[in-house]
Amino acid sequence: MIQTLEWTDQGVRFIDQTKLPTEEVYVNCTTHQQVADVIRNMVVRGAPAIGVAAAMGIALGMKNSKAENGADLKKDFDQICEAIRQTRPTAVNLFWAIRRMQEKFEKIRVQQVPQIKQSLIEEAQRMHAEDIAANRAMGRHGAALMPASGGVLTHCNAGALATAGYGTALGVIRAAVEQGKKIHVYADETRPFLQGSRLTAWELMKDGIPTTVISDNMAGAIMKQGKIGAIVVGADRIAANGDVANKIGTYTVAVLAKEHGIPFYVAAPISTVDLETSDGSKIPIEQRNAKEVTHIAGKQMVPDGVAIENPAFDVTPAKYVAAIITERGIARAPYEQSLRQLSQQNREKP
Amino acid sequence: MIQTLEWTDQGVRFIDQTKLPTEEVYVNCTTHQQVADVIRNMVVRGAPAIGVAAAMGIALGMKNSKAENGADLKKDFDQICEAIRQTRPTAVNLFWAIRRMQEKFEKIRVQQVPQIKQSLIEEAQRMHAEDIAANRAMGRHGAALMPASGGVLTHCNAGALATAGYGTALGVIRAAVEQGKKIHVYADETRPFLQGSRLTAWELMKDGIPTTVISDNMAGAIMKQGKIGAIVVGADRIAANGDVANKIGTYTVAVLAKEHGIPFYVAAPISTVDLETSDGSKIPIEQRNAKEVTHIAGKQMVPDGVAIENPAFDVTPAKYVAAIITERGIARAPYEQSLRQLSQQNREKP
Repeated sequence: MIQTLEWTDQGVRFIDQTKLPTEEVYVNCTTHQQVADVIRNMVVRGAPAIGVAAAMGIALGMKNSKAENGADLKKDFDQICEAIRQTRPTAVNLFWAIRRMQEKFEKIRVQQVPQIKQSLIEEAQRMHAEDIAANRAMGRHGAALMPASGGVLTHCNAGALATAGYGTALGVIRAAVEQGKKIHVYADETRPFLQGSRLTAWELMKDGIPTTVISDNMAGAIMKQGKIGAIVVGADRIAANGDVANKIGTYTVAVLAKEHGIPFYVAAPISTVDLETSDGSKIPIEQRNAKEVTHIAGKQMVPDGVAIENPAFDVTPAKYVAAIITERGIARAPYEQSLRQLSQQNREKP
Repeated sequence: MIQTLEWTDQGVRFIDQTKLPTEEVYVNCTTHQQVADVIRNMVVRGAPAIGVAAAMGIALGMKNSKAENGADLKKDFDQICEAIRQTRPTAVNLFWAIRRMQEKFEKIRVQQVPQIKQSLIEEAQRMHAEDIAANRAMGRHGAALMPASGGVLTHCNAGALATAGYGTALGVIRAAVEQGKKIHVYADETRPFLQGSRLTAWELMKDGIPTTVISDNMAGAIMKQGKIGAIVVGADRIAANGDVANKIGTYTVAVLAKEHGIPFYVAAPISTVDLETSDGSKIPIEQRNAKEVTHIAGKQMVPDGVAIENPAFDVTPAKYVAAIITERGIARAPYEQSLRQLSQQNREKP
């Protein structure tokens, strides 16, 4: 089992996703500022993993707090939450995790300082365990949507490395394979950060699931050749109407899927659904450093002075989405209703 | 003016396109085998440039021939043509150029050996000059199709560097800019070889044409934002029915164009039209080394043991193509008729 991130007595330990697939290196964060940096620099990435990392960062900051009374501890808590909030704008799981830790804090703030700290650590660890359980449930729900055999295309990495473990989109694929389906994964390399070639290929190979890496622009040709029976991707935020913000390039894949009559599925925990955002146009899209596009492995690929766009995400309108697979079941259009219903329903006991 | 390739007394001189944009280095080939290597290794690439390089390679081989009579010279000629033919399978301009040199040879084979050599050198130089003139004519015809202002997206490099000069798709853009149109070019970086970021951006910057480089998977999002008014790309081979083989990823762009109602244009000389190939399914697609995908700038991006696909080209069915811009005029659907008509028509005097 890949340990994407882990609470330890020494701090929060992350596999360094910027070093994969050639180096398996771990980073130990002993302060919440280090956790914030690790999120910002994409040592850890993937919406659900960012959520758990945020909770653990807050717990770590609390653990380190020198506050001796509830009022001072609250001041530290607010500051820590703010530092974590300022890391990345698009994945709603970050804000969801902060809010959940805030709600926990409110509930227990009358307790003694050491008890509060301990409860927040436990809450973060619970979120870690719940995320894995949610992914397993998504897998159970989604596996039936996967073809009995043949190619399934995915974009970016929505796997164990994007979550506390098992994965969302790759969790669905893993569950289908566990059920005996003969799936061959086509992984878009996913420029500029190459999560597909570096991360998805790495973790699927560890599981012995056959995988072919293609550059993003090959997806159309591969679909036209009839090699793809389904597409499944993750999500960074899903608006109330079912519009999906996910890694840049997802929208292009969705348009190609429509043109070829291939079902396009999104797998994401309910914490990714943001009922307060009515549609995709209101989702803030992070622009990242131009150097991610201009330089690869330190080598300059674009002449000086040329403009760059580097949005980290795009929005796929709901009309392209055949179904959204959550841990509570499968949502289908009209998403306004189905997502609201699933969001308000009691959490499925995994 | 960028000198993509040039006949000199010392041999055939190429700008090394594998070194751009950070190094402007030239390679001088003194044998036809070196020219074949330069084509195979993509020091020179782009269908029209490959055609001219092939002709110059044959002329160079002939110049070096030790044959003292017509029969021996013919043997050398056939061997040289075969070496050049074995370089790359998709761009039909290669075979077109070889055939044209063969026809020239047949016409003059009764002459003395030195005269034959000189005539073949002149024929290759004529093809160089004609290619530039054809691109200028394409520019005149195609400029009217470009929007008066705004974004034009292109894929790969169909510019001066892909031709003897001026370019096909970029020639159309250059002509539109010369007419006063305010065009901003969006250049797909074009994995795996990065012809967009390395070559298109480089040559447009030299001309002061505003350019933004995007990774291939951003094209959909940029189109959805309304930033693109037209798309223009080159071609490596156009079948009789108008199906277009071009750099991998072109088909994806064409599908996106259709979805967004953006006209998708192809600019290519008549020598790219292959009336003997009835449709795109019969165009051989070159598979290149997996390392182009797995390694970037020498760094490994895909774990060992993962499968790779690396087709250098894909086929865009004619139904996605709004018009094909040639030096003899603009072809529109039904392409069966319009392409045949333009192909059989006398060459326009540029």
